[in-house]
Amino acid sequence: MRPQVYISDLSKHVGKSVTLKGWLYHRRSSGKVKFLILRDGTGYLQCVVFKGNVSTEVFENAEKLTQESSFEITGAVKLEPRAVGGYELDAVDVKIISISSEYPITPKEHGIEFLIDHRHLWVRSKKQVAVLKIRHRIVKAIRDFFDMRGFVLFDPPIITPNACEGTSTLFEFDYFDLGKAYLTQSGQLYAEAGALALGKVYTFGPTFRAEKSKTRRHLTEFWMVEPEMAFYDLDDNMDLAEEFLEYIVQTVLTEMRPELEILERDVTKLENIKRPFPRISYDEAVQILLESGIDFEWGNDLGGGDETIISDKFDRPVMVHRYPSQVKAFYMKRDPKNDKLALAVDVLAPEGYGEIIGGSQREDDLDKLLHRIKEHNLPQESFEWYLDLRRYGSVPHSGFGLGLERTVSWICGIEHLREAIPFPRMIYRNTP
Amino acid sequence: MRPQVYISDLSKHVGKSVTLKGWLYHRRSSGKVKFLILRDGTGYLQCVVFKGNVSTEVFENAEKLTQESSFEITGAVKLEPRAVGGYELDAVDVKIISISSEYPITPKEHGIEFLIDHRHLWVRSKKQVAVLKIRHRIVKAIRDFFDMRGFVLFDPPIITPNACEGTSTLFEFDYFDLGKAYLTQSGQLYAEAGALALGKVYTFGPTFRAEKSKTRRHLTEFWMVEPEMAFYDLDDNMDLAEEFLEYIVQTVLTEMRPELEILERDVTKLENIKRPFPRISYDEAVQILLESGIDFEWGNDLGGGDETIISDKFDRPVMVHRYPSQVKAFYMKRDPKNDKLALAVDVLAPEGYGEIIGGSQREDDLDKLLHRIKEHNLPQESFEWYLDLRRYGSVPHSGFGLGLERTVSWICGIEHLREAIPFPRMIYRNTP
Repeated sequence: MRPQVYISDLSKHVGKSVTLKGWLYHRRSSGKVKFLILRDGTGYLQCVVFKGNVSTEVFENAEKLTQESSFEITGAVKLEPRAVGGYELDAVDVKIISISSEYPITPKEHGIEFLIDHRHLWVRSKKQVAVLKIRHRIVKAIRDFFDMRGFVLFDPPIITPNACEGTSTLFEFDYFDLGKAYLTQSGQLYAEAGALALGKVYTFGPTFRAEKSKTRRHLTEFWMVEPEMAFYDLDDNMDLAEEFLEYIVQTVLTEMRPELEILERDVTKLENIKRPFPRISYDEAVQILLESGIDFEWGNDLGGGDETIISDKFDRPVMVHRYPSQVKAFYMKRDPKNDKLALAVDVLAPEGYGEIIGGSQREDDLDKLLHRIKEHNLPQESFEWYLDLRRYGSVPHSGFGLGLERTVSWICGIEHLREAIPFPRMIYRNTP
Repeated sequence: MRPQVYISDLSKHVGKSVTLKGWLYHRRSSGKVKFLILRDGTGYLQCVVFKGNVSTEVFENAEKLTQESSFEITGAVKLEPRAVGGYELDAVDVKIISISSEYPITPKEHGIEFLIDHRHLWVRSKKQVAVLKIRHRIVKAIRDFFDMRGFVLFDPPIITPNACEGTSTLFEFDYFDLGKAYLTQSGQLYAEAGALALGKVYTFGPTFRAEKSKTRRHLTEFWMVEPEMAFYDLDDNMDLAEEFLEYIVQTVLTEMRPELEILERDVTKLENIKRPFPRISYDEAVQILLESGIDFEWGNDLGGGDETIISDKFDRPVMVHRYPSQVKAFYMKRDPKNDKLALAVDVLAPEGYGEIIGGSQREDDLDKLLHRIKEHNLPQESFEWYLDLRRYGSVPHSGFGLGLERTVSWICGIEHLREAIPFPRMIYRNTP
């Protein structure tokens, strides 16, 4: 086909005649003028069709276009600060590609279930486009951050023979003649094998939790990035997590301003996301809860409501470290100063977005790890390969996981994780 | 912990004293000198421990280190062109971190089953490290290629309610109260929704085929990148595929020479991978087979052996286009010049590596697509959302999928896909 000019490239074409292709986002008429808002995925452009400037056929074509009809339009590009995007097209030709049936998503308000039923079309809406572009930019920032620091991507398996984070929330299926297999809940154990081979690695892929939670913070399928570093202790881990979050947020702020504006995001909240982040121990977190009048018992895990109370005390992410080991996973190293504590860290996002990072220093002592596996009633045989990492060249090492959709929701300032991924999967939905 | 110097950074430290951390890759002794080869994931470094230069304790530490033991070593960096990597460390201190038990993978030859059983350790071997680093660089090249060209990442769901590429090779499981769900075989149908929203998108994630094939070209879990472009026809699609493959190969050639050398890859074969690639029709491909004495019937799909015969005629990837529609998927557009043909293209890698790209222009006509769905006995109801993409603003569009592990195998020159991914999944293996 002949080369297409995109709306995002118009600055190179001012004063010239170009042909664009896309869909009708909106139309209004005013006597002998039609204003067509073209969308092409890269932006929005007001195209002006003057009756006096075009043939009858072309004017009629402009008339026939319904919302979301696809068309090709030719005309001269001019600067127009009052128009969306800052340019306007003075049309001389309009070719219809396909007339859309009556489009289900109109400018009126729709219920959320209706919108998710039509997710394959809803992704065309201005706000959804903005969220998906920010998601793209966040993914790129995540990868760039690790690539620039010498990390090697280490894709873990999705099909796994055993559970990593407990057995109650697993999707299970038959794997040929080998019995049951499960969808991965985390790539971490595999990332540890990677770190001992490659020094610093990261996994980045979909993970699954068959959780029966219906909250706005839960998806059954979500993407997670998990760096794992040989020779990092808990402090190194927290330093990296902090630098990482700052980099992601500041990159989006610098490069995605137009999209943040479409989402009406209060960017002053994001401008705060600079190091150093506050670091408080679990004990200090409990103190905050008690002072806030919450009846909280030492030893329990922090719930969503607790996290919000704690994070509301700070204007940037807060790192809560050294949790009671009883609420944390078997592979976490104990605090040498207090065996009741795990060398864990959770990072709580501001504005009530909850835990976006969970990490720890890992247990590197074979005997202690064996003991934990027994304590947690895990099948030792399934973990023999993991135990090998302590038998052969064990080193202190640490890592963390960042949930992509939670991060996207927080940065975009959207309410529910379901808008942070193209096709969300929840307990009550696996379509479209 | 105190900041670590990595072997890959040694050029900045020549003449200075540094501390490195890692594992013992190899050791040899020569009287009063021990040569320790340290690996730290970023490279290999010969460390020289002279008995006269260190304390008895330090010399004994060097003596105690077994293969894969972890240790910390301090000394002065010097240029040494004869040593691996070009540097050498004149050690003054050696601290043991952890003595490794007798390491199962020794320099002797091991059977492939033994090695895959120990995949969590095998990934530390020099060749495996090289392959995984090249895989990392290929993934980055793939993403950079699309990011630079204005594509938006569009992660498709892994959990899907219906099949895309036929129902015989699906992993099936129970999805809460919603009945059966399946692991995705391709993100393409979803990518089409993305292209109509965002113009040009790409998916990049794991895909699954419960194929009973035991060949070296099959994994049950593999990564696939799938670009999808609105307003692209088959020729545009082939232009993009060609530019894409050239970019990936030339990037690896430029940036991963040391790794290609470790793999003893014949790089002259890769240097050829420059545009334009030969483009032949299926009819011409059949002609090549017949001339080679193969008893091939028009209308059949090309088998692995057929592909090798065809690709052996060329010194770079060959693009075979316009296949009989009967061997291709329901969503492919028919050739307007010959309804028996689909506007499909497969790209066959040289050197017998087979199909690495499969793509097509998609059917954009609602009635024709409906007809095909019936013809293929697919449940229309499951495809209503996909049909909506033709009801609301249909446009000509095209895309393709590239299998990551096949590409990694080809570029690395390795025999079997199982070495192209950290933890391979095959019909007879889902561990470790």
